[in-house]
Order: sequence, then C-alpha cells, then structure tokens
Amino acid sequence: MADPSRPGRPVVLGQNQYGKAETRVVKITRHGALHHIKDLNVSVALSGDLDEVHYSGANAHVLPTDTMKNTVFAFAKEHGIASAEQFGIRLARHFVTSRESVHRARVRVEEYAWERIETSGADSRPVGADRAAHSFVRTGRETRLTQIAYDGRACEVVSGLKGLTVMNSTDSEFWGYAKDEYTTLQEAYDRVLATDVSARWRYAWTGDEQDAPHWDTSYAQVRKHMLQAFAETYSLSLQQTLYQMGARVIDSRSEIDEIRFSLPNKHHFLVDLKPFGLENDNEVYFAADRPYGLIEATVLRDGCEPRIPVDLTDL
Amino acid sequence: MADPSRPGRPVVLGQNQYGKAETRVVKITRHGALHHIKDLNVSVALSGDLDEVHYSGANAHVLPTDTMKNTVFAFAKEHGIASAEQFGIRLARHFVTSRESVHRARVRVEEYAWERIETSGADSRPVGADRAAHSFVRTGRETRLTQIAYDGRACEVVSGLKGLTVMNSTDSEFWGYAKDEYTTLQEAYDRVLATDVSARWRYAWTGDEQDAPHWDTSYAQVRKHMLQAFAETYSLSLQQTLYQMGARVIDSRSEIDEIRFSLPNKHHFLVDLKPFGLENDNEVYFAADRPYGLIEATVLRDGCEPRIPVDLTDL
Amino acid sequence: MADPSRPGRPVVLGQNQYGKAETRVVKITRHGALHHIKDLNVSVALSGDLDEVHYSGANAHVLPTDTMKNTVFAFAKEHGIASAEQFGIRLARHFVTSRESVHRARVRVEEYAWERIETSGADSRPVGADRAAHSFVRTGRETRLTQIAYDGRACEVVSGLKGLTVMNSTDSEFWGYAKDEYTTLQEAYDRVLATDVSARWRYAWTGDEQDAPHWDTSYAQVRKHMLQAFAETYSLSLQQTLYQMGARVIDSRSEIDEIRFSLPNKHHFLVDLKPFGLENDNEVYFAADRPYGLIEATVLRDGCEPRIPVDLTDL
Amino acid sequence: MADPSRPGRPVVLGQNQYGKAETRVVKITRHGALHHIKDLNVSVALSGDLDEVHYSGANAHVLPTDTMKNTVFAFAKEHGIASAEQFGIRLARHFVTSRESVHRARVRVEEYAWERIETSGADSRPVGADRAAHSFVRTGRETRLTQIAYDGRACEVVSGLKGLTVMNSTDSEFWGYAKDEYTTLQEAYDRVLATDVSARWRYAWTGDEQDAPHWDTSYAQVRKHMLQAFAETYSLSLQQTLYQMGARVIDSRSEIDEIRFSLPNKHHFLVDLKPFGLENDNEVYFAADRPYGLIEATVLRDGCEPRIPVDLTDL
Repeated sequence: MADPSRPGRPVVLGQNQYGKAETRVVKITRHGALHHIKDLNVSVALSGDLDEVHYSGANAHVLPTDTMKNTVFAFAKEHGIASAEQFGIRLARHFVTSRESVHRARVRVEEYAWERIETSGADSRPVGADRAAHSFVRTGRETRLTQIAYDGRACEVVSGLKGLTVMNSTDSEFWGYAKDEYTTLQEAYDRVLATDVSARWRYAWTGDEQDAPHWDTSYAQVRKHMLQAFAETYSLSLQQTLYQMGARVIDSRSEIDEIRFSLPNKHHFLVDLKPFGLENDNEVYFAADRPYGLIEATVLRDGCEPRIPVDLTDL
Repeated sequence: MADPSRPGRPVVLGQNQYGKAETRVVKITRHGALHHIKDLNVSVALSGDLDEVHYSGANAHVLPTDTMKNTVFAFAKEHGIASAEQFGIRLARHFVTSRESVHRARVRVEEYAWERIETSGADSRPVGADRAAHSFVRTGRETRLTQIAYDGRACEVVSGLKGLTVMNSTDSEFWGYAKDEYTTLQEAYDRVLATDVSARWRYAWTGDEQDAPHWDTSYAQVRKHMLQAFAETYSLSLQQTLYQMGARVIDSRSEIDEIRFSLPNKHHFLVDLKPFGLENDNEVYFAADRPYGLIEATVLRDGCEPRIPVDLTDL
Repeated sequence: MADPSRPGRPVVLGQNQYGKAETRVVKITRHGALHHIKDLNVSVALSGDLDEVHYSGANAHVLPTDTMKNTVFAFAKEHGIASAEQFGIRLARHFVTSRESVHRARVRVEEYAWERIETSGADSRPVGADRAAHSFVRTGRETRLTQIAYDGRACEVVSGLKGLTVMNSTDSEFWGYAKDEYTTLQEAYDRVLATDVSARWRYAWTGDEQDAPHWDTSYAQVRKHMLQAFAETYSLSLQQTLYQMGARVIDSRSEIDEIRFSLPNKHHFLVDLKPFGLENDNEVYFAADRPYGLIEATVLRDGCEPRIPVDLTDL
Repeated sequence: MADPSRPGRPVVLGQNQYGKAETRVVKITRHGALHHIKDLNVSVALSGDLDEVHYSGANAHVLPTDTMKNTVFAFAKEHGIASAEQFGIRLARHFVTSRESVHRARVRVEEYAWERIETSGADSRPVGADRAAHSFVRTGRETRLTQIAYDGRACEVVSGLKGLTVMNSTDSEFWGYAKDEYTTLQEAYDRVLATDVSARWRYAWTGDEQDAPHWDTSYAQVRKHMLQAFAETYSLSLQQTLYQMGARVIDSRSEIDEIRFSLPNKHHFLVDLKPFGLENDNEVYFAADRPYGLIEATVLRDGCEPRIPVDLTDL
C-alpha cells in the first residue's frame, strides 16, 4: 500500500515487523525441596496489518511490546517451560491466533545451561548423594538457540547453538589449493584445526498433525553428533569437516531436514622458534584473533527445500 | 550435486561460501607532510564451484583465505582506497573475473572515522591554521558499512551504518494502541524517544554502464537526512519515525532505491519520585538495557524490488 | 574484629565495601523548548561499620543498595546535575554525613556526551540558526569518568577518560633498545604510533575551604592538552610521549597534582608487499589486536604524593 | 628523579611499568597419539630503571615488548607449561634476574579450560574407552587467573577466577536493614541469590626455600570450597555468604593467607503477575542487567597482612 497521506509520493513501505527483544525470564520449578531452573532470553517479532502505524502513527493495530514482555512472564507461569522450543511455539501461536491483525509471529529464544553444585557431606539438603537441591552453577557451555515462526497455518522450528569451541590438535592438513599472484601461504601437512561452531537446524515438524520431536533429546543428539564428526574426521579442509558434521546430523536424526553452519577458522599459527635455537615440532602456537577464515554451508536431506538464511542471526 | 563418495546417501550440499573475515587494513596517503588515513575492516566471501572440497577435501578450486587477505593489502597499495564502496567493488570484481570457479563474491567493509587533532600554536607542523598534518583522533561516531556483491554481471551495493545513537527529549507520544488481557502499559503523551540507528540502503547503480554515485557524498547526505527526519518528526510511534526517516532518504536521494532500518526502542523510564515527596516532571529517567522494543522495516522507491534481507548483518 | 560467632577461628574480615553499581540516570533540563541532557552511569560503594553483616547476616547497618539507586534518581531531581564531579561529591557526602555507620563513600561516574542534531530549514523548532532544541546524537567520543572519595573530612576527586583513540602516522621512531637472546624486533625509524588513551587525574581540591575547580572547563582543557602533546611530540618511544602528555597537563593546569596513563601500543605493522612486486613505502598497515604493548605511568607535580592506584579501573 | 632536560620544571615521573599484554599461547604436549593442551593469555609488565626513556626517549634500558612476547613462546617450548602459576613464576624471575635495570616483574595469566570430546565407537583413535586423544571442546567454565610478582627477593602469587556464575533458588532472605527517606525496598523472606564470582587468593609461598603448593590441586579445591560454601550457606545477606565462602577457603587451605571477592548481586526480580489473575509463588523472575548490587571484601588468615588491592583486575 502506498502512503495514503502523500498521494503521488513514490515511496512505499516494505517488509516490517516489531516486537520485544531480550526478555530475560528465569523459571524455578519446585518439587518440594528439589528445584529445577530454566533460564531464557526471549525475543518476539510480529508482522501483519501494520501499514497504518508507519504512515500516520495510528496505533490501533499495535499491541505494545510491553504486552509481549508481560505475555512471556505470564506464560512461564501458566504453561511452564518444558523446553525452549515448546515455549516458543506456544507464544508464537498465541500472538497469531489471538489477534486478527497479526499474520506472522517469530519467537527467538536463547537458553543458558545450569548444573547442580556438588555438595560436601556437610550439606543437610542433598538431592541425591552429592548434588544440591536448589544451588546451581552455570555451565558456560555453548548457548542453545531456537527460532519459531508461525503464520497461522504452519510452524517452522529452527534450533541451533553458538559458542561451541572445538579444537583438533592434529589430523588436519591443507594443501593442493589454488594459487594466484597474491598467494604466499605454505602448505600444511599437520596443523591445528579450531573453530567456534555456530549451527542452525530446521525440523521437519510443522504442526500438531505430526508427532513433535523430543526437543531436548534432539538437541543433545545433534550436539553429540557434531562433536563426534568434528573429532573423527581426518580433515583436508574445514569445508570437508563441516560437511561431515552436517551429513552425520542428517544421517542420524530423521527429524531434521536441513542444517547450516558458520565456522570461523580460528587460526593457530606455529611460532617460528628458530631464532632462539629451538625446534617447534607442532608444540607452540600463537592463537590469532583477526583476520580469520569463515566457512559457511548448508547440508540438506535430499529432496528438501533450503529455508535457513545465508547469514545466521541470534536474536 | 549429491555426495559422489557415498552413492545413495540422502544428503546434499546446499548454499555455501567461504572467505577471509575482518582483515584490518589501514592506508596512509601522503601528500608531502599532509597525511590522509583510511581505516577499514574488510571481509571477503566467495561462492562457486566448491562441491568437491566439501565432499572429499580436494582443494583445487579453493583459493586460500590467506590469499584474500594478501589481496586486500596489495590492492590498498596498487589502487588506493578512494572509498569503502569503490575498494569493495574492485575486490569483488577481481575475485570473480580472475577465477573461473568463483561465481560470486561478496565484500563487506566497516569503516572507522578519524579527524585531525587541533593543534596549539606551538606546533611547527600545521595543516591549516589549527589542524595537525599527521595526527588523528577517532571520532567514535557511528560505524560506516558497505556490502558489495558481484556475480559476473551486476554489482549490488548496499551501504549503511550502525551505532548512530539518537534521542528526542520530547515530541513523542504513544497511545491508542491495541490492548489484551496482558496489557498493563500506561499511555504516554510526552515521552523520551531514543534509538541506536542501524540502517542499510541499496543503490540503484549496478555497473559501469551507469555513472557511479559519489559514495562519500551520498553517505553524508543519507546520514544528514536520517538525523533531520528523526529530529523533525513529531512521533506517535517509533514506526512512524522510522518511515519518515526512510521516506526522506528515498525522496531526497535518487541514487537509492531501498532502505531498511533496525531500531531498538531504548526505553527511558520516568522514575517514580513520589515516595520521596518529589514530582518528576519529565526530568529524571532510568535508561534500561533489556528488554527493548525492536522496530524493523524497509522503505522502497515505488516500483523497486526489495532485496535487503530481513535481518541486518554486519560482517 | 575476629569472627565472634566462632571464637578461636583463625579467620578475620579485611577491607570491605558494598554498593549499587551502574545506575543509568538521564536528566533532562528544560528551559522552555530548549532542552539539555546529562547521561550518567553512577556506581556507589560504602564502607564503615559492617563487620556484623559479614559474620552473622545482621543487616542493621546495611542501607540497601536499592536505596542508593533511589538516592541517585532523587538527587538528580532535587539538586540537578551540574557536572559529574559535583553530582558525585554531593552523593558521597550525603551517605557519609547521614549515617554514622558509613565511614567512607566512593562514587564513580561515567558520562556519555551528546550533541545537538543539525536541522534542516524545515524544522520549526530551532535552537539557534541550525540546531535542534531537543534532539540529540551521541558523539561516540571518549567516555568521561570521575571518582569521588569522601571520608568525612576530605574529598578526593580523580577524574579521567577512556576510549580516546589517537594516531600519529609519522614522527615516531623506536631504536637503540636493549637486546637479549629473544630479541628479533627490527629497529624502526618511521612508524605509526597509535593508542587508546586511558587517563586519570587527581585534583588538588579536597573541600569547600578551597575554591572548587570549574570541572567542565578543566576536563576540556586536560583533553586538549593531552591531544596536543600527543600530536606535537616527536616520539622516540611511547613512554616519552606519555610523559610529555602528563607533563603538559601538570604544567598547564594548576588544579591538578597527579595524572596516570594506561596506553596500549596499538601496533600497526607494515605489510610486506614484496612478494607481489610492490614497495610498501609506509602506506599499508595491518592493525593488530593482540598482543599489544602496554605503557603505564604516573606524572606528578613535584612535592605531591601519588595516590592514584597502579591499575586504573572504571566502575 | 626530576626531569633533567628541563631543570626547574615542577614535574616528576612516578610509578611506571611497561610490557606486552595478552600474548595468546597454546601449547600442545604429545605423548604419542595422546595430546594435552594448555591455552593461556599472558601479560608481562616490568618496572625498574626507566626514568630516562620517559624523559628523553633513550631506550637503552628498554627491552622491547616484542621480546617479552618471544620469551613467552620460547619458554613454552623450553620449559613447558606445568601450570599457569609455575609458568608465570619462571617468566617473572627470568626478566628480573637477566637484566640489572629490571627491578620488578609482574606476570598475569588467564587460562581457558578444555576437555576431551566424547567419541562414538566408530572412532579408531580413542584415549580410553570413550575420549578422543587429540580432540577438545572448551568447557566455557570460569576463567582461571594468576598474577606473579617478583622483585628479586620474593615471589607473590595471587591466583583467582572470574565468571563463575552461581544461583541459589531459595534459602536467601534480606530484611532488618537500615532505612532512610529514600528507602522503598520491601523485605524479602525467600529470594533468589545469584552472582558472578570473581575471586583472588594469595598464597603464603614466596620462594623456593618453601615447598611450593600443588597449584592445580589448590585451584580445584578452592573452587570446590567456594561453590559448596555458596550452596550450603543459608543466607541473610550476600555479605554473609561472601564471608562464609572466604572463611571456608582459609579454614580448609593452609597454603592460602588471604582471599578477596567481588560479587555482583545479580538481581532476579519476582514478576508481578496479579494483573493477569495469576499468583507468582516464587516461580517467575526477571533477570535484570543494571543496576546491580556489588559486594566486595577480603577474608584473611588471622595475623596476615592484606596485600590484594581493593579493585580486582584481570590483565
């Protein structure tokens, strides 16, 4: 729709959305003295019949972003947080089904992992033999991610992770590459390969007519397969490792149709110690910050359409 | 192409690209004692005939990312850096035209602005009356961005900025919005409106058969129009302000076909001072971090296709 | 005092303090349509008679940190924010004089600078010819800092800045240094010298029996002298430049007794372009991240005691 | 020494030091196919006879910071990295004993923890039953820290950690506190207590005439005692919890004389769900960013001098 307030103006509104980003909700579930914790960062974005607010500032179709924040908190109480995915699906459906002017909702969730603190014998409040009932330490592991999109008909669930830092201290080579007049790199027959895995995978599931995956199991299994494929691939290039990581996930997890990776090649340069009369037999490395290689690719189940965007985003 | 090494495996490679990210190049140009500085962060990504390296690790089509870094430095010397856009265009074309296996190059550039240090009379090396010839201070203003994509036929230039933080201390209202059972927000008839502008705009120019825009002038003018539209719009919603910012750019700059914004609503909450016997007549605010509203939209020249992705990315 | 709850336990409490950190207060002052803005981040720390709360959890002497936050907001209304220093002095005195159990207060303030947006002729709300009355853009310049300590008798005011990034593109050398068996560095007779200035300076003023400095003028003058000394020193080492920056401040500003700097040597390495048949005549540099040199020193007015700690801290 | 180049100038040089910060060294130790990894960030600072370089730029006493970087790499090869502490001690002693003009060396080390990737049965290169021999994943746990200071006579070793995030979901109260005219906080009889532990502890050991502690064991034990004391203290204030954490370390670890904590009170605010007809029975919390309480204190072995500075620093 062209701007009605300025007929003839050659300017139109395109894709638009709005919402509340980064609502930090922590949910404690109590089973007597035994507590469980969910720690999420939730971002909601809605789109729909919103031309008018852009053209004139008339807010009749604008549910305040403050209300979205309230809804996140209220739903945590009313429905609990079984998993990031389930919580996001419920929120996304709510906004689309409860308001005619909302045509699409996208909910993104970051989840931070906690584990129980090991206790001493002195603790009078143990869970099992040696774990605190309501004391936790953040694991600091990778951040778990999910994005739910719902348009009134189908759900699209893309889950993932970021900040999973891995290293192989051998079994990586890089040679036989193309060369031009600006190439000075020496071939490497035994190098360190390190990366921060950022991955997103799309589930085949699109709605309740199908059985939903067990989201937590699926997450744990994808993580395990990625780590194992990284560790168990003798690598001739980071691209090859990436493909093996993706292929193993697609091979092993029938609930997933597509996975995309963004893998920085965290260069570890062998330090030249010859000036000091020392040999460096693949022992001492300088871990560089910038620049870094960046390898990105999608791996698909044969016959499936790619739907994860080229640039991975978090929030 | 399906994985040739594992016939029958139901896994295929999708979109993929690789490159060197964040090469930090600083170019000093000397006109006698008078120096000029360009300070860029350059990220290159190439795509093309790269299936083989993913499937088997054969690197014959892989130009090392180290070579891309070298090329950035060498081109800074050979061709200079007239502007981030021109430098990026030259790089993108180079990679596609010099290698048959490269079908598309994307170059992203961040640019950091410096200004000359004002000197005292004591300085024996002045530029003009009062500016140092080779001493600079970073302005700390917003970061200038550009992304060049070249596929062998056309260039697409999307420039932008991030980190432009603005505030109106009045002339902003928010009321008349939709309400549901989770709505508790009070209507506001005089509020602070603040945001960190992140914007990307796409140029109509696609190649040398057209006159290229004057990139630096265009950047300065877009920035000016955005700031003025922000300051001069009496705002009933951040969406309305966003649209006015975009429309003014499209109206004023014929070289630009499309602009997209991502505007966090940096909430400034009026502090309740009544418990202390004080009135807060729109004077004292708490600047909150999270959560925040997030308003995103594209504004287009009528008849143009939108091409900027929904999620803005930097590097 | 030893822990009274466990007589004989060989453990004692040492220095301790507590407070509310990072209260983000924004104050708008309205002179009719013309608005002024102060944007601060305030951290309060109190110490005094607080052994009991550590030993037993008895909070009778503990003013809640929430109250400190409230006080920041209330004082912004009641007393305004003439400058970061004056606001901090008022807060620090308040906590010590209003509570017997508080023996010392330390208030740290970060201040973010804003400037008015230039307006178009279309603006109906100009300040002067060309500046908006209530629309602002953050300058992004360095962050201004101050720390006030008050112990019931004297104030100590240490102001400063961080994030002032500067570069000389010539007039810097580095040679004649000590060498040992691990030295490989080549001498440099024309190099880039760049740093992020972090500085703290202590005022001679300690209380109202003396005239207080004009804090804003003093800040502006110190900044100017540091920049000029950086620009106007032909440098044989970053230490020499640091000393000249400090000495010029002490020479020029009689209200300041001591200044300390922490200057990272932001290395700009000349890129070797010979493999590409190119000369690099001090034109193309790689701006490295880590590691970096770090030069730290205090410069004092003769006869004054140094009181700024070795490690500079922000909050 | 006063500035000899400007007799009569009332300016003198105070405390000063210089060095190379953040050398990122990774050491791989190979026992056949079984690899071990040490991943450190090392910062060196030297002080001594350095007046001349500040006054005139004469570098004869300045060992280049580049040489310090080289020394870090060379020592990793020559001597290995048994622990962050041992590596730092060796470096600190080297600089002081090898150069007459260096009177004091301070070495700071950050260490990042890695663990072995669990492998599938398919892996042909297992360590034990189920762990990769040379594939690692960063744990993301807290960062381990140490600082070594050596002045030619004694070593001072202060180790520590940062980024250890913990939470008790109950067994925390806060009431009975002081109140003034700015106090609005409601008393809490069951609240969430969460913090990011930053701690530094000083070892009694000062040199080889004493047996050195087993640094890795000591670190693991201090961490365990802090976590257990956090979990097992029924808390009436974060100060009480802090003291218990420190006292348990001093009680349990005879090799440690002093420990200092900086504990942000990461506020988790109970969300008011009454407007939605819901009770919030300590279930749903908003995790706030700023402002936050900040509790800092030293706990000492009786009779020992405090030597850890008030402000904890990392690098």
